[in-house]
Amino acid sequence: MKLNNHFLELKDSYLFSTVARKVREFQAANPDKKVYKLSIGDVTLPLAPAVIKAMHDAVEEQAHKETFRGYGPELGYDFLRSELVNYYGKRGVKLELDEIIVSDGAKSDLGNILDIIDPSNKVLIPDPVYPAYVDVNVMGGRKISTIAGNEANGFKPLPYDGLDADVIYICSPNNPTGAVYTKDELKKWVDFANSKNALIIFDAAYESFITDPTLPRSIFEIEGARTCAIEICSFSKIAGFTGTRCGYTVAPKELVFDGISVNALWNRRQSTKFNGTPYIVQRGAAAVFSDEGMKQIQENLQFYRDNAKIIKEGLNSVGVWSVGGENSPYVWARTPKGMKSWEFFDKLLNEYGVVCTPGAGFGENGEGYFRLTAFGDREVTKEAVKRVIELYK
Amino acid sequence: MKLNNHFLELKDSYLFSTVARKVREFQAANPDKKVYKLSIGDVTLPLAPAVIKAMHDAVEEQAHKETFRGYGPELGYDFLRSELVNYYGKRGVKLELDEIIVSDGAKSDLGNILDIIDPSNKVLIPDPVYPAYVDVNVMGGRKISTIAGNEANGFKPLPYDGLDADVIYICSPNNPTGAVYTKDELKKWVDFANSKNALIIFDAAYESFITDPTLPRSIFEIEGARTCAIEICSFSKIAGFTGTRCGYTVAPKELVFDGISVNALWNRRQSTKFNGTPYIVQRGAAAVFSDEGMKQIQENLQFYRDNAKIIKEGLNSVGVWSVGGENSPYVWARTPKGMKSWEFFDKLLNEYGVVCTPGAGFGENGEGYFRLTAFGDREVTKEAVKRVIELYK
Repeated sequence: MKLNNHFLELKDSYLFSTVARKVREFQAANPDKKVYKLSIGDVTLPLAPAVIKAMHDAVEEQAHKETFRGYGPELGYDFLRSELVNYYGKRGVKLELDEIIVSDGAKSDLGNILDIIDPSNKVLIPDPVYPAYVDVNVMGGRKISTIAGNEANGFKPLPYDGLDADVIYICSPNNPTGAVYTKDELKKWVDFANSKNALIIFDAAYESFITDPTLPRSIFEIEGARTCAIEICSFSKIAGFTGTRCGYTVAPKELVFDGISVNALWNRRQSTKFNGTPYIVQRGAAAVFSDEGMKQIQENLQFYRDNAKIIKEGLNSVGVWSVGGENSPYVWARTPKGMKSWEFFDKLLNEYGVVCTPGAGFGENGEGYFRLTAFGDREVTKEAVKRVIELYK
Repeated sequence: MKLNNHFLELKDSYLFSTVARKVREFQAANPDKKVYKLSIGDVTLPLAPAVIKAMHDAVEEQAHKETFRGYGPELGYDFLRSELVNYYGKRGVKLELDEIIVSDGAKSDLGNILDIIDPSNKVLIPDPVYPAYVDVNVMGGRKISTIAGNEANGFKPLPYDGLDADVIYICSPNNPTGAVYTKDELKKWVDFANSKNALIIFDAAYESFITDPTLPRSIFEIEGARTCAIEICSFSKIAGFTGTRCGYTVAPKELVFDGISVNALWNRRQSTKFNGTPYIVQRGAAAVFSDEGMKQIQENLQFYRDNAKIIKEGLNSVGVWSVGGENSPYVWARTPKGMKSWEFFDKLLNEYGVVCTPGAGFGENGEGYFRLTAFGDREVTKEAVKRVIELYK
């Protein structure tokens, strides 16, 4: 028996576990000092009351023979898929019910989607980027090239003459940079993908943070996307489902390569290697789109948006170059005086008691930058920003 | 972009969807006739009160900032893993906490485990078998050979001289046949796997149906299994979690190939392509092992076991050859007069209004057999058995 040796090519130490270890070490050495964390992308506000009510009701249904539900449809209940059709419809994106495939989260879909993609394809990944895009491709022994985000392109790389790719990852609003592609910019990627017969894997996990009505929240707002893109999205950020687990993939009917439908293959993959998202969770997810649910969710999102604004304005006040923080929960900023990311991280933690995420952990183009997140408490956010600013003075 | 063409090698029509279509057609043509279904493997009893209470409590925790839980540990909360350590410990199987990796279900694990296994391995699958074993290997373009279950071996094939395999699937109690390997028989597989440096993927989804204390409920009750086997199990059958979704994989520390740990690779796979089982669901699963939970679960299991006994005794009363029905929710029986499986299925449905699962749908060695399940209502089970017996008279 031979194991998959490509796993040995993975980088050993994962970014967030290294950050966590350094924080633990600092706290052990300084038990009396408070640590202000703006490092992780996890939400902190509880689930909305409408979601809680729907889940209590669903738990109760599972308690009685008359209403008990066993195996559900592997691809998701229609009651949730129809809410998602409406959600997209409200911003002018027309989807059919069976173009939406419900899952246990975007992270699962982003990894599992590779099952339906031949290993011979050339994969293009932006750098800096969410580390899992790279890892899942390394595990599959796939050929990866990167395209650089930097200050010149506002961390929104665009296709250029001579660029080659079969599979293209795009995350907008971006993790880690918070940069958001405009419609014109996304159109360039869609045209490029269609001209190359390439597939775009569009990660829309942060779409709910977009408030600027001119910015695209779905790649399917772009003409031509239905023949070149799938979109993977999540309830984690819109509704705080990080520990409740629900996501979905949109695979349009027109997305066909060599006569084979991506939707049909993904459907088969999920029906064979997955058995559906818990009924209780799907009821909770559907409640997000009720009138009360949507109102409650927006209050939570606004709280995080206000945090992002505090971070952004703080950095602006001392003239730090940054991107994100508007239409995104992440702010991506340049370290002072050309400091390396990890050097800055250590100084910020050890001298100021603040935890950021070092940009270099997201790829070589992240060197010299760091990420702050808007998911913290208000007082933690305010105090952390005050301290970060001190470091620049 | 090239899609994974191995998906085109999958058989188009899935067993259970064909069964469902035929039943729909019969009901449309005979709207006044009642149909008695003993075909599907889904549970019908509601979740146990202890599980319901634990899930209500967990939903409530998610409603308040002080108790809200975001991202959980990808491999499962310790509160659930320690319950599983105890559950195995009670039958003398000693496991460490991090040898148990919690997931959203056995079906996911049975498919996803192939990510860590090199495609060059030779896969051995018993026939008849749960169709997903074959499908997930076909999708990966793997070389599959089968080993025949038949009346001579009681549908419990054993290794023989000249048999070759790198990866071996074993399901005991078996789906679809209900046959259960003895310790001596499993020891033959364990010795074979160790001698060949092969991996056994042991599917223990139906272990909770075993009441005979001499029969093994885990492969880790067999000496030598920790160096050749992983075990995949589920809360679906023990506690009716088919729509609630929780399972786990046991990967012992001693399971190492070419110096690489299976536990470490599966850990990395799940940490990268999965984000944990919902907190609410894990709380429900842990409650299964409380004193009340275990008592309530056993009542449900006994109900299904009594159904199995009714089926078994009915078939015995007219001298039908069958296996299973003891220590298993499935009964696997020979059709009358050498009838083909689908011919029998059609006759049983159209003339007697009873739905079975045709054995041929589980592989070529299933031809001439059919499966009945114990998961139905009591009255449906009784009436269905009465009608099946009629067909034999």
